Amino acid sequence: MATAFKVPSSPKPSETVGFVRNAWYVAAWSTEIEDGILGRMILHTPIALFRQQDGQIAALLDICPHKFAPLSLGKRVGDGVQCGYHGLEFDAGGRCVRNPQGNQKIPPGSQVATFPVVERHGAIWIWPGEPALADVQAIPDFGFFSDPAWKAIYGLGHVEGNYKLSIDNLMDLGHGLFLHKASAGDFGDARCEIEVGQEGEKVWDRRLYPSLDMPEALAARFDVPAGAPMDVVADIEWLPAGLIQNLIAMCPPGKARVEGNMTRGMHCLTPETETSTHYFFANVRNFLLNDPRIDEGLRRWQKDALQDEDSMMVSAVERNTEAAVRLGVQPIYLSTDNAGARVRRVLETLVRRDNC
Amino acid sequence: MATAFKVPSSPKPSETVGFVRNAWYVAAWSTEIEDGILGRMILHTPIALFRQQDGQIAALLDICPHKFAPLSLGKRVGDGVQCGYHGLEFDAGGRCVRNPQGNQKIPPGSQVATFPVVERHGAIWIWPGEPALADVQAIPDFGFFSDPAWKAIYGLGHVEGNYKLSIDNLMDLGHGLFLHKASAGDFGDARCEIEVGQEGEKVWDRRLYPSLDMPEALAARFDVPAGAPMDVVADIEWLPAGLIQNLIAMCPPGKARVEGNMTRGMHCLTPETETSTHYFFANVRNFLLNDPRIDEGLRRWQKDALQDEDSMMVSAVERNTEAAVRLGVQPIYLSTDNAGARVRRVLETLVRRDNC
Amino acid sequence: MATAFKVPSSPKPSETVGFVRNAWYVAAWSTEIEDGILGRMILHTPIALFRQQDGQIAALLDICPHKFAPLSLGKRVGDGVQCGYHGLEFDAGGRCVRNPQGNQKIPPGSQVATFPVVERHGAIWIWPGEPALADVQAIPDFGFFSDPAWKAIYGLGHVEGNYKLSIDNLMDLGHGLFLHKASAGDFGDARCEIEVGQEGEKVWDRRLYPSLDMPEALAARFDVPAGAPMDVVADIEWLPAGLIQNLIAMCPPGKARVEGNMTRGMHCLTPETETSTHYFFANVRNFLLNDPRIDEGLRRWQKDALQDEDSMMVSAVERNTEAAVRLGVQPIYLSTDNAGARVRRVLETLVRRDNC
Repeated sequence: MATAFKVPSSPKPSETVGFVRNAWYVAAWSTEIEDGILGRMILHTPIALFRQQDGQIAALLDICPHKFAPLSLGKRVGDGVQCGYHGLEFDAGGRCVRNPQGNQKIPPGSQVATFPVVERHGAIWIWPGEPALADVQAIPDFGFFSDPAWKAIYGLGHVEGNYKLSIDNLMDLGHGLFLHKASAGDFGDARCEIEVGQEGEKVWDRRLYPSLDMPEALAARFDVPAGAPMDVVADIEWLPAGLIQNLIAMCPPGKARVEGNMTRGMHCLTPETETSTHYFFANVRNFLLNDPRIDEGLRRWQKDALQDEDSMMVSAVERNTEAAVRLGVQPIYLSTDNAGARVRRVLETLVRRDNC
Repeated sequence: MATAFKVPSSPKPSETVGFVRNAWYVAAWSTEIEDGILGRMILHTPIALFRQQDGQIAALLDICPHKFAPLSLGKRVGDGVQCGYHGLEFDAGGRCVRNPQGNQKIPPGSQVATFPVVERHGAIWIWPGEPALADVQAIPDFGFFSDPAWKAIYGLGHVEGNYKLSIDNLMDLGHGLFLHKASAGDFGDARCEIEVGQEGEKVWDRRLYPSLDMPEALAARFDVPAGAPMDVVADIEWLPAGLIQNLIAMCPPGKARVEGNMTRGMHCLTPETETSTHYFFANVRNFLLNDPRIDEGLRRWQKDALQDEDSMMVSAVERNTEAAVRLGVQPIYLSTDNAGARVRRVLETLVRRDNC
Repeated sequence: MATAFKVPSSPKPSETVGFVRNAWYVAAWSTEIEDGILGRMILHTPIALFRQQDGQIAALLDICPHKFAPLSLGKRVGDGVQCGYHGLEFDAGGRCVRNPQGNQKIPPGSQVATFPVVERHGAIWIWPGEPALADVQAIPDFGFFSDPAWKAIYGLGHVEGNYKLSIDNLMDLGHGLFLHKASAGDFGDARCEIEVGQEGEKVWDRRLYPSLDMPEALAARFDVPAGAPMDVVADIEWLPAGLIQNLIAMCPPGKARVEGNMTRGMHCLTPETETSTHYFFANVRNFLLNDPRIDEGLRRWQKDALQDEDSMMVSAVERNTEAAVRLGVQPIYLSTDNAGARVRRVLETLVRRDNC
C-alpha cells in the first residue's frame, strides 16, 4: 500500500561547510552609499562601508574595538568614521586617529580590520579574504552596465537560504518553464538545445529554444511581435563565488544565434550568513532605452520572477533541506543539473582551499 | 522568612522523547483538501496531501528528491503531482512518472515515500509508522459525525505545546471549574462522582455532577431551562496516540445517566513538532439541529474554551516547563490526574516500542 | 592595502557566566502591583508578585507544582493565590492550603518556593539568593523619592542585552557627549575633571564640566538661562548588582560643587535572562515641582536618552558581541572606563561567590 518510511538514526549532510573567502563579492550597489555609513553582514562578518571625501569607498569591520558598538551607528568625519558611542575616530585604513575621552591617548591595539574594496559597474566589490591576493582584474567584466547602448535597472533582494541554492536555481535554466510559468509565459515543456561548458573556474549553460510562440506579456517586455515564433537564446555563466551573468535574446528564426532584442543580467549572490543571502540583480537591454514601459516590465520581472518565484522557492528548499537531511532523503540528479553540478564541484574545492 | 531557593546543577527531564509512529493521526479535515495540495508538518515530517481524480486521498513526503522543493508548492496533474520547481511528476504511489527536463529519463532513486491514508468521519487519517501495520479498523468510531440525528461543527487550532500537555488538559476534567469559569459558568467547586477506567490501551474518565444550577449562558447553549437544577454528565475517553472523544449530557435529575440534550466532541491531537500540535476539534449535538444560535454557541465554545483557555494554558505550561525542569521543580500528583497518568503510562510504552 | 583579516579558530569569551544571586533587585515599581498577580522573569526565574490584604508584597516562584502552570495566570484569594488551571491555593508563604480537586487532600511536596521581598522608595525589591542573607538595610537609600522637596517621574524599559552592558553604559559618563548629542545638546568634546573612586563594593565616577554654554533644550529642562555658562556636575554611583544612582546639577560658576537646580536618577538594572534586562529608571528634581513642562521634559529624556539612545546602543553592542568574540576582536581600554572596570571586577567576584 505505501512505501515503508523509516526515520534514519544519524543522517549526515554531505558538504564542506564554510565560505569561499578569497573571492570578490558585491557588498552594495553604488547608489546605496552616499554620505552615511552602511552596515551590512557579509560572509557572517559585519562590515561598515562609507565613502571618503574623494568618493573612494572604505570597508571596515563594523565593530569598534572599545565596546564593540557598530561603527555604522556613528558618522563620517573627514575621510574616516566617528563611533557614535564614545567618539573614537578611525581613518579609512582602520587606524584610530582620535580619542576624545579622558587622557585622549590612542590606546594600543585599536586598529580596526579593513577589507579590499573597489567600485565598478555600479557596484561596490569587497574581498573578504587575504588582502595580498585581491586582484581587481578578477572582477568579471560587466561593461555593458556603463555602455550607453544599454539601459540598466537595478534591484536588491534578500533570500532566506544559502547562496549555493540560489546558484543552483540560476545555473539550471530548466526551472524556467515551470517556476516562471506565471511571470514568463506558458511554453509547455518546450525542448531546447543545451550546451554546458567549463573553462578553468568559469562554468556556463547555453540554451536555444527554436521557434517559440511569443505570449503577449513576454513579447511586450522584449518589444517583439506577440504570437509570432522566435528563436530564444538563454545563456548563463558563473564565476566564483557568487557572480553570474546571463543573456536572453529574441532572435528572428533562422538568423544568427545572438541577435535582435536582448537583455543581459547581473546576478551577484553574496552570503549574509550560512542560511541567508544578499541578491544583487540588475538587467540591461539594448532596445527602447527611453521607454518607461520597458523599465516597468523589467522591474516587474525582477519582483515576480527573481523574488516572488526564485527566492521564494530557494527559501522553501532551505527550510525543507533540514527535514530532507534529517529524514535521509537521497537527492537525485537530472541532466539539467550539469552546469550546477560543475559549479558545486568548483565551490567545494575553493571552500576547502579557504578553510583549511 | 522565605524558603531557600537553590538552582540545581543538572536537572533532568524524566520522559522518553519521541513520537508514537504506529498510530492513526488526523492529518486534515476533509474540507481542507479540494483541488490543491496541502502541505502540513506531522510528527516533524513534512507531508503533501491531495486527492486523486476519484476523490481518494494520497499522502507523500513533501520533499521532491531532486532539489528538496516542497511538492505542495506544485500542482495536481492527473492522479499525481507535478513539482513546481522543475516539473518532475509523481503518481499517488510516489513513483516518478515523468521528467520533462533534458534527456527526459526517469532518474534512479526517484521514489518518494508515501504514507497510508484514509478518509473517515469528515477527517483525513494518516499512519506515519510501518505501513504493514496500518489497520483501518483501528480508527475509533466517530460514527455520530455522519449520523443525521446529530449536527456537527468543525474547527482547527494550533497549540504551541507538546501534544501530551493537551492530552493532560483534556483527560483531567477537573480543570473545567477553574479554567473555564468564564466560558462555562461559575459552579464554585461543585463535587462530582468520578469513575476512571482502562481497557487495553483505552483510558476513560467519567464524571457526574448531580443537581447543578444551570447558569444562563450554558443553559442557552444546551437549550435547557436556566436556573433549574440538572445532572451533568461529563465523560471523556482516550485512544492512542492523540484521539479523544467526549460527551456532555444535561440530564433531568433522577433520570437515566445519559439522557437529554447532549454534545459529543472529537478532539484529535496531532503532533506537528515536539513543541507544537495541530488540534482538530469538532462537536455534534442531538438537539435543535437547525438552530443557528446553537451553531454559534458551539463555535464560541470552541474559540473561548478550547483555544483561548485550554490551548493558551497548554502553551503557558509548555513555556514554563523549561524553567520548571531547569529549576528542579518536582511535579505533584492529584487524584484528578488518574486518567491522565494512565494515558501517560500507555504513551511511554508505545513511544519506547516505536523508537527502539 | 588592507589589514589581513583572519577568522580565528576557537574564540573564547573571557567572563564568568552567571548571576549575582545574593543581592537586592528591583522586581517592579510599586504602582505595577495592585489587585492582580504580576508574572515577571527575573534572573531567568519566573516570579509571581502580589499584594496580601494588608498591602504587603509576596513573591512566589511562578510555577504551580501540579502541572507547572504560571500562578500569575490565576487570581488572588485572601492572602494567597489560586492557580487558574485546577484551583490549587497557595498562601503568601508558598504553602498549598487548599486542593479543590478529587479527594481534596493537600499533596505532599506541594510547597512553592518564595523569595524575600520588600517595598521601599516606590519599588518592590526582591532577593533571589539565600533568604538568610537578605538584609533590608543593604537596599541603597533612595530617600529623596519619598521626600516632598523632590518630585519623581518613573519609567520602565526593556533592554535586549546583558545587564552588565547597561552598567558599562551608565558608569562611563564619557558616552554622553556623543551618544546623547541629539537629546542633551552638542558640547563638542568638552573637557571635564573626573574623580573615580571605590569604597568596599561601592564604585563612583564624578565629573565636573566647568562653564558649559547651555543649549536651549537642556536649559529649559533644568530651568536655567539658555546661553549662559554653567558648571555642570555629573555624578554616578553603583552598588551590586545593578543599582545605580546619579546626580546632575547645574551650578552657577564659581559656587559650591553641588548647588542649584538638579535631578537625581535611580537606574535599577534587573537581569531578565543572560541577554535581556528590565531597566527601572526614575528621576527626581528639586525645582518647579508643579510644572508639567518639566515633567514632560524628564519623560522625553527618559524615552530619548535612556531608551532610544542608551538601550538601543546596548542592544546593538549585545548583537555585535557575538561577532566580535567569534572573530577574535580584542577589546581596548580607555581611561573613561575606569569606573566601569572596577564594577566589572566586583561583579566577577560576586558571580564567582554565588555560582561556586
